[in-house]
Order: sequence, then structure tokens, then C-alpha cells
Amino acid sequence: MSRIDYPEEIRGLVGQLKRLPGVGPRSAERIALWLLRSRQTPAVDLAAALSEAVARVALCGHCGFFASVGTGCRICGDDGRDRRVICVVEQSTDILPLERTGVFQGQYHALHGKISPLDNVGPEDLRIGALMERLAGGEVEEVILATGSDVEGEATAHYLSELVGATHPEIAVTRLAQGLPAGGGLESADELTLMRAISGRRKV
Amino acid sequence: MSRIDYPEEIRGLVGQLKRLPGVGPRSAERIALWLLRSRQTPAVDLAAALSEAVARVALCGHCGFFASVGTGCRICGDDGRDRRVICVVEQSTDILPLERTGVFQGQYHALHGKISPLDNVGPEDLRIGALMERLAGGEVEEVILATGSDVEGEATAHYLSELVGATHPEIAVTRLAQGLPAGGGLESADELTLMRAISGRRKV
Repeated sequence: MSRIDYPEEIRGLVGQLKRLPGVGPRSAERIALWLLRSRQTPAVDLAAALSEAVARVALCGHCGFFASVGTGCRICGDDGRDRRVICVVEQSTDILPLERTGVFQGQYHALHGKISPLDNVGPEDLRIGALMERLAGGEVEEVILATGSDVEGEATAHYLSELVGATHPEIAVTRLAQGLPAGGGLESADELTLMRAISGRRKV
Repeated sequence: MSRIDYPEEIRGLVGQLKRLPGVGPRSAERIALWLLRSRQTPAVDLAAALSEAVARVALCGHCGFFASVGTGCRICGDDGRDRRVICVVEQSTDILPLERTGVFQGQYHALHGKISPLDNVGPEDLRIGALMERLAGGEVEEVILATGSDVEGEATAHYLSELVGATHPEIAVTRLAQGLPAGGGLESADELTLMRAISGRRKV
């Protein structure tokens, strides 16, 4: 008697689902069987949504955010936004979390990476040329460096501040504040966060 | 300034992913963005796996397990299995968990449901006719009722035991044992489980 398993096509689907972030082997199997239950419409719907997203979603050549073939880039296409401020982020996916705070009304620029010598990512691999082109337009008055506070994010911010300072001394370069996260007590903050919170202290 | 969100196609994909069992809104967004990162190959691969599964996976008309257009039903096609015992389960997905125990070497029969008057599911909605046809072959000596131990599973088992007893008195009808789950202490077992564990007690 041979060992029974699901047909090859189900195992192939489970294999693809297992690769998704946060989906383990057991959930992948559960999802695959759910997708194929009864009339298989969930599987057909998901396949259609995937194909449509692949065919119609692209990255905006200007700011690097997700754009759709139909509507273009919602951020670059919005005339109501302040074109004098550009917020530079690492990834396209960093834009919406900032946008949801509701306090920033300028433009964005996604670098699509960060300087990381260990991964062979240098400044030439990032969308820095595109950023310099935008700055050359003369409209921008402030560049906010919103890269991460890890080593690579800091290195990228440092590189950009030097570059913008040298080429456009008239543009203000700022960095996101670092300190205690909201709702966190001092006992849960690490040493570096506390150091930065102290050195960045403000008058009340 | 209008509220910025992801393009419609990404939101559509997130909507489909949110429906999957165990995937919440935040994981759906994370998965969608992961699928569309860089060259979008994960999305293309997943869409292909889905389409292949939809096109090539069907339910075996005999036992009700998943079968593939290519290889047919792996269980019914296996000549090494004991055709004298049929294990009756509610769902196709109940078969592999039983199979993985390695102790059962007979055939299966998935009812594709259970008797549930509240959901308007009666015996005529289940694959009971197909089961009776298999029993009419005269080869079967035992029917194991492996429906769940909830009210509907018990009702389905009761109905089937009466039906098989009336039509094929020569066939032994058995039911999966009920009692304490492995590794569970008495303090974590509910009253009904304990009652069944006591009434089903065996000599050691």
C-alpha cells in the first residue's frame, strides 16, 4: 500500500501558499482545501485578482509608489499636495503608514532599498538619481529623510544628507525624530533608543 | 487633498486574501504586497497553481476524496487496500488525518456533509445513495462510522447505523471510540467527554 497524499496539484498549491509571509504548512493546507471546496469559486476569484493585480499594478516612475494602469499614481496626480516637501522612504510600502498618520501633505520618494554593503547594495542601486532629478527642478525646499533607524537606514540617511547638502545647500534636510515609541515605558526601551531619546529631548 | 490608498487592483487582491481562513486584514495586506514585490513572480506562480488546481482537481465519484485528472483517485486506485472495510467520514478533508495515523488500510467514503436540520441538510443531500451502492456489491464486511462527535455527527452516525442494519444486517457497523484525548488531563475534559470515557471504559 503506497502512502496516500493529496493530488499533486493540491500539493503544488499548498507549496505556493506556504511561501506567503505568516502562512505555515498547516495553514497553507487549510487555505488550499478551503479554496477548492465545493464549486471552487474562491480559487477562481483569487486567481483573477492576482492576474489583474500583476497586469495592472506598476510602480510610479516618479515617486515609486504603487500606481495603477487605470488611475495612475494617486499621490503624484494629486494637485492639492505640497510639492515643496519630499519625504524619502526606503520602500513603496513605507508610504501608506506615513500617509495614514494624516500629518504629512507633501510628496514622497521611495528609494526601493537602502545602502547595505553586506548585501552588495550601494547608492547606485537605489532611486537616488531620480531623486536628484526631482530636486533639480528647483521647487523643493525640504527633504525629510524617513529611512529606518537601523544601521542601513542611518547610513542611507547620512549619505543622502551629505549629497543633498553638497548639491543643493538651499534645501533643508531633516530626519524623522527618534525616541520612545508611543505607549512604551522606559523599562521596555533598549539602550540605543533611550540614548537617542535623551539626546533628542525637547523643551516642554 | 484626497485620501490616498493602494490602487484598486491591490485593494481587490487584499479583499480576496482577507477571505482566506486565518488571514486577517493586516496579514492580507502584507501578503498582497509581498506577492507584488519586485518582479511579481510570486503572484504569477500562485495564480498558476490556483488555476491548475481548479482545472485538474476533482472529487472521486466513488469515495469522494480529492482526485487528479492525471492520476485519478489514489485511494480507490490502490489495489493493496482492504476492500472489506469502509470508513465513512463527513468531509473529503477528514480522510488524510485518518490516513496519517497509518492504522487504517481499508477504503473511505466521504458523505460531503452531515445531517443538520437547522441548515436544511437531510440524508438525501449526502452521498448516502453512493454508499448504499458500494455496500450492494457484497464485498464489504464492516462500515466504520467516523463522523464527528458533535450533535450532527452523532445524528448522521445514528441514521447510517439504522439504515445499514436494516438493509445489510450481515455488515458490522462500528463507531470511532470516544473518550479522553491523548495527553489531556481529566481537569481539561468536559462533562460529556468524561461521561463517554466512563461508559466506553475498557478492561486493561
